[in-house]
Amino acid sequence: MTIRIGVIGTGAIGEDHARRITHVLSGGHIVAVTDVNRSQAEAVVARLGLDARVYDDGHELIKAADVDALLVTSWGPTHEEFVLAAIKAGKYVFCEKPLATTAQGCLNIVNAEVAAGQRLVQIGFMRPYDRGYQLLKQAIDDNQIGEPLMVHCAHRNPTVPESYITSMAIVDTAIHELDVLRWLLNDDYKTVQVVYPRRTRNRFEHLADPQVVLIETHKGVRIDLEIFVNCQYGYDIQCSVVGETGIINLPEPQSLLVRSDARLSTAILTDWKQRFIDAYDIELQNFINGIAQGRIEGPTAWDGYAAAVAADACVKAQESGQIEAVVMAERPAFYNQ
Amino acid sequence: MTIRIGVIGTGAIGEDHARRITHVLSGGHIVAVTDVNRSQAEAVVARLGLDARVYDDGHELIKAADVDALLVTSWGPTHEEFVLAAIKAGKYVFCEKPLATTAQGCLNIVNAEVAAGQRLVQIGFMRPYDRGYQLLKQAIDDNQIGEPLMVHCAHRNPTVPESYITSMAIVDTAIHELDVLRWLLNDDYKTVQVVYPRRTRNRFEHLADPQVVLIETHKGVRIDLEIFVNCQYGYDIQCSVVGETGIINLPEPQSLLVRSDARLSTAILTDWKQRFIDAYDIELQNFINGIAQGRIEGPTAWDGYAAAVAADACVKAQESGQIEAVVMAERPAFYNQ
Amino acid sequence: MTIRIGVIGTGAIGEDHARRITHVLSGGHIVAVTDVNRSQAEAVVARLGLDARVYDDGHELIKAADVDALLVTSWGPTHEEFVLAAIKAGKYVFCEKPLATTAQGCLNIVNAEVAAGQRLVQIGFMRPYDRGYQLLKQAIDDNQIGEPLMVHCAHRNPTVPESYITSMAIVDTAIHELDVLRWLLNDDYKTVQVVYPRRTRNRFEHLADPQVVLIETHKGVRIDLEIFVNCQYGYDIQCSVVGETGIINLPEPQSLLVRSDARLSTAILTDWKQRFIDAYDIELQNFINGIAQGRIEGPTAWDGYAAAVAADACVKAQESGQIEAVVMAERPAFYNQ
Amino acid sequence: MTIRIGVIGTGAIGEDHARRITHVLSGGHIVAVTDVNRSQAEAVVARLGLDARVYDDGHELIKAADVDALLVTSWGPTHEEFVLAAIKAGKYVFCEKPLATTAQGCLNIVNAEVAAGQRLVQIGFMRPYDRGYQLLKQAIDDNQIGEPLMVHCAHRNPTVPESYITSMAIVDTAIHELDVLRWLLNDDYKTVQVVYPRRTRNRFEHLADPQVVLIETHKGVRIDLEIFVNCQYGYDIQCSVVGETGIINLPEPQSLLVRSDARLSTAILTDWKQRFIDAYDIELQNFINGIAQGRIEGPTAWDGYAAAVAADACVKAQESGQIEAVVMAERPAFYNQ
Repeated sequence: MTIRIGVIGTGAIGEDHARRITHVLSGGHIVAVTDVNRSQAEAVVARLGLDARVYDDGHELIKAADVDALLVTSWGPTHEEFVLAAIKAGKYVFCEKPLATTAQGCLNIVNAEVAAGQRLVQIGFMRPYDRGYQLLKQAIDDNQIGEPLMVHCAHRNPTVPESYITSMAIVDTAIHELDVLRWLLNDDYKTVQVVYPRRTRNRFEHLADPQVVLIETHKGVRIDLEIFVNCQYGYDIQCSVVGETGIINLPEPQSLLVRSDARLSTAILTDWKQRFIDAYDIELQNFINGIAQGRIEGPTAWDGYAAAVAADACVKAQESGQIEAVVMAERPAFYNQ
Repeated sequence: MTIRIGVIGTGAIGEDHARRITHVLSGGHIVAVTDVNRSQAEAVVARLGLDARVYDDGHELIKAADVDALLVTSWGPTHEEFVLAAIKAGKYVFCEKPLATTAQGCLNIVNAEVAAGQRLVQIGFMRPYDRGYQLLKQAIDDNQIGEPLMVHCAHRNPTVPESYITSMAIVDTAIHELDVLRWLLNDDYKTVQVVYPRRTRNRFEHLADPQVVLIETHKGVRIDLEIFVNCQYGYDIQCSVVGETGIINLPEPQSLLVRSDARLSTAILTDWKQRFIDAYDIELQNFINGIAQGRIEGPTAWDGYAAAVAADACVKAQESGQIEAVVMAERPAFYNQ
Repeated sequence: MTIRIGVIGTGAIGEDHARRITHVLSGGHIVAVTDVNRSQAEAVVARLGLDARVYDDGHELIKAADVDALLVTSWGPTHEEFVLAAIKAGKYVFCEKPLATTAQGCLNIVNAEVAAGQRLVQIGFMRPYDRGYQLLKQAIDDNQIGEPLMVHCAHRNPTVPESYITSMAIVDTAIHELDVLRWLLNDDYKTVQVVYPRRTRNRFEHLADPQVVLIETHKGVRIDLEIFVNCQYGYDIQCSVVGETGIINLPEPQSLLVRSDARLSTAILTDWKQRFIDAYDIELQNFINGIAQGRIEGPTAWDGYAAAVAADACVKAQESGQIEAVVMAERPAFYNQ
Repeated sequence: MTIRIGVIGTGAIGEDHARRITHVLSGGHIVAVTDVNRSQAEAVVARLGLDARVYDDGHELIKAADVDALLVTSWGPTHEEFVLAAIKAGKYVFCEKPLATTAQGCLNIVNAEVAAGQRLVQIGFMRPYDRGYQLLKQAIDDNQIGEPLMVHCAHRNPTVPESYITSMAIVDTAIHELDVLRWLLNDDYKTVQVVYPRRTRNRFEHLADPQVVLIETHKGVRIDLEIFVNCQYGYDIQCSVVGETGIINLPEPQSLLVRSDARLSTAILTDWKQRFIDAYDIELQNFINGIAQGRIEGPTAWDGYAAAVAADACVKAQESGQIEAVVMAERPAFYNQ
């Protein structure tokens, strides 16, 4: 059984997912594409050699009888609309981040999905599909370190462009940890605080870099998350979970151990695209396999909502300098499993 | 374009490759299977949900008009016959190790392929598809350590069954290094020697374990390869290349770094099947992609022959205690590219 | 030239320093000892084979004409008195932690030393003599990572006895980091905050463990210091300095790399006495060598005062749950060099 | 009790040992020095501020009544003569490598010491005093890896001067492993073989570099020792012992772990003098302490002889290309303990 997929939005990430489904993964077939710029959609069809119809409009594509599932990879502000339409059409939909541009928008999707009575939406948080995070999760769930008490994390980029502003440290950068740590700890956030260390001189005047996000979860776990987007030396994701009897660290990406020039060293990545490249493959394959079996299991609309609420609280904390509460709607029983 | 594949031999490895092509990889479709035990082939079709015809005979399957390419995963002594038949039929064929049970058998395949005037055969040496070995190869080819001068390797298993005899240290175990090191160094073997260290007491009386294989290549590189198949502690593949200006080591498999019980540690695999699991996927995907583009690029029939000749010399050296020459036929220009 | 040293207090640490000076180090000779328990002092003389006179009283010993320098290793509440007496006698004095039991007591010593017009006091903070911390300091001073922006630290013990109470996480444990980080960063503390993660169940009811101390320095560096004194797995001191262009980590103590039982591992210490054993030797040798050259250079009375003030602020922050200011007297120019 | 020591030969190593005893170690006092160049001896006395008499002649110094023990750090060819004289005088003597320039010369010393009926001689092999090697030894003796079966070693220097010739790879370089491995394994060598890998181009025409020394011990342990004295990247000593149940590796020298410039790295030493600097201190302190207790326990004259015999066999194997036997005199019971 091959899942027939339509792609709404054929920009960089949309094209990459179409390539992945067509040339790398198993069980999916791109049958329909659309983009606000129709010629862009046509170009992708040509480049990838797709056997897919080009639609003028996302809603038309969603309704197409030969489309089983959707990829929403269009401009962020359009996500909510297309995801709601997909739910209405009773079709599975994989939506890239963000699920919606506001927490309320995410909640609208949550409510629609609950009303539909069936999980249809997967949000494109790929870190839970990273093997390193999966090893962390498994070790925690296997009680290898007792209960988690603290998490020390860092998210570092070599540089960012001048357009990157202080709040993006939360909504573009920390958002990945805000998502993956909930899943890792099976927990929710209670309060957040942001402190500003001395600034690096290797940045633009307008940007506070680095920042430290301090989080308390409902279970009492304390998380410190360093965000440093002009660290110069590389793209580096660190995560260390301190439990009652031991500590586990996210593995470094695989690299040769080299002895040369008076150094014993391994490589650090410099391009973020390399870091989670396998996770994107596994994530989408998992979505396709889930549809084939009638139940998708990846990050939910609720997860998208929770990350949005946490990010809002962090941005507020950036501005207030205070400890801010993370206030969420009640979780529908629908999302317990 | 989907490559239609027939599988000859549906034992463990044949079934696993069929699963891989059907549920993991892209671009291939299993349309035909056969096994000396027909019910076994039928069971695999059922288990994997294949849309494939079951043939009574490998030769019949090879000739089938709707079969574009073959997987030969039958009993070793039948490989030569089926590969030769595939070449005769002008079809691409992926043959699991060994290509043939004798060096002469391998040479027969080489000659047939040369006569056919086109590369049709890929032998199932998966290590060149391991990312770690690929990083080693790339570093050497990029001249990061100057010319390679020495290679220190180890191939260790936790235990082997009583049926494992001394010569199997070469033909079943060292054979993987004999293959991958030629590729890695872009070199051929000149002489081999085997020395026997003190034996471990954790083995059967009849087995000399560990062993050290000492190899000299045509370019003068010296390789020492430790084979230790009852090392108790894990399945561990080590490879360190010493060049004129630096040394590179095969990466350890990815693992959590753990602090617990007064140790700072990472895991060592104990099951060899885990070690190269990704390499099998990449290997077969590469074969399928190659066919789609009309040119396969994986390990050749000549590589199968070269490994067989080297293994024969090592077994001779095991018995003689002497330095033995590795004498190969002249390499057909066909295999230069 | 041999420095003639008198020891005030021959308990565990006093005896160990006497042993060190007599049997390990060069240039010092123990000529006088005293203890509130005279028989204890006599026993140490016998055990170590010292050629030393036993005094009934510390003040008498301080005045002895053949005593060039003092070690104050008596009960903490007596330190201030003996150090002040040593300064009055114009003699060098090495005082174990704490310099005094209150910040004011430390300040009294500072003022006396300033009045004396010469550096006479060294406080027994040994971490600056640890080779690992010296490598960190040198790398920072050599500008290898640009300006330090953040420091991530941990101080972990396997267990503590029931007598250990929550404030001791500061005054007995964090005190070492409060000292060494000022020296490492060449900076002073501005504010401190203490947060309490979920408690480990491997502790006594009365103890909050772990704790996280959050510090801001005058230069703006942000320090997070995890204190976890029942971590079970070992005695583990971590320090990672994040600078503008790179990150440096305190080295792990030297250990064999072992492959066994499916783990690749090094040992973690479990006994804190092993961790800084070399640093104690270097610290005291440095004190002796300094006297021989007429100028001691180790941690000063001011450093003892600064650590005391910081610890007081942390204890206040433990209780208030607020960010607390670290308010110090003005630093005498005497301590600038 | 202070041991009064006379130094014969005040070149670089002699001066360094005198400095060590005077300014770093405990329990020894340099009371006498001599050198073929008297002004050199006088200069050392002045530079180090020694309270020592300068003798015109080593034999005169050996006989001096106020000299308890000797350091022989003169030109190699004079060692045998001075050590024999020290034995005759019944005085303890620490002799730098080589004990004598021939195996026979070493045997003469062995015989003299046996005749004297007391251990008087310690040879300056410092590696057994290196903490890393001591950890290896302890792990083996504690049966942590079962019986040792193989040892993989490397001895690498960044470069050597043009005066370094092929045989020096044995007598100057491998000699350290020839000594330390006997001690480590508590074993003796049976045969040796030398093979020549492809030569590095970063060397002089006359020098075969690298070389691999293959050794079989009496217990059957197989050792491969890579000697590579123009490896460019650093001074690097590797030793990995493969036992029946696990593998232990000599620790890397302590170094900061650094993240910078897209590398995660530690430093490799480039100057051999840094590598065993602590071992020299411990070695001499151990010699002094041993004398104070009437029994020295460091490397013996027999160890010096054994290393000389092994080196002779290796040089023979360099020239013959054959496996050469290591033939030693019978070990006097005197050296069993």
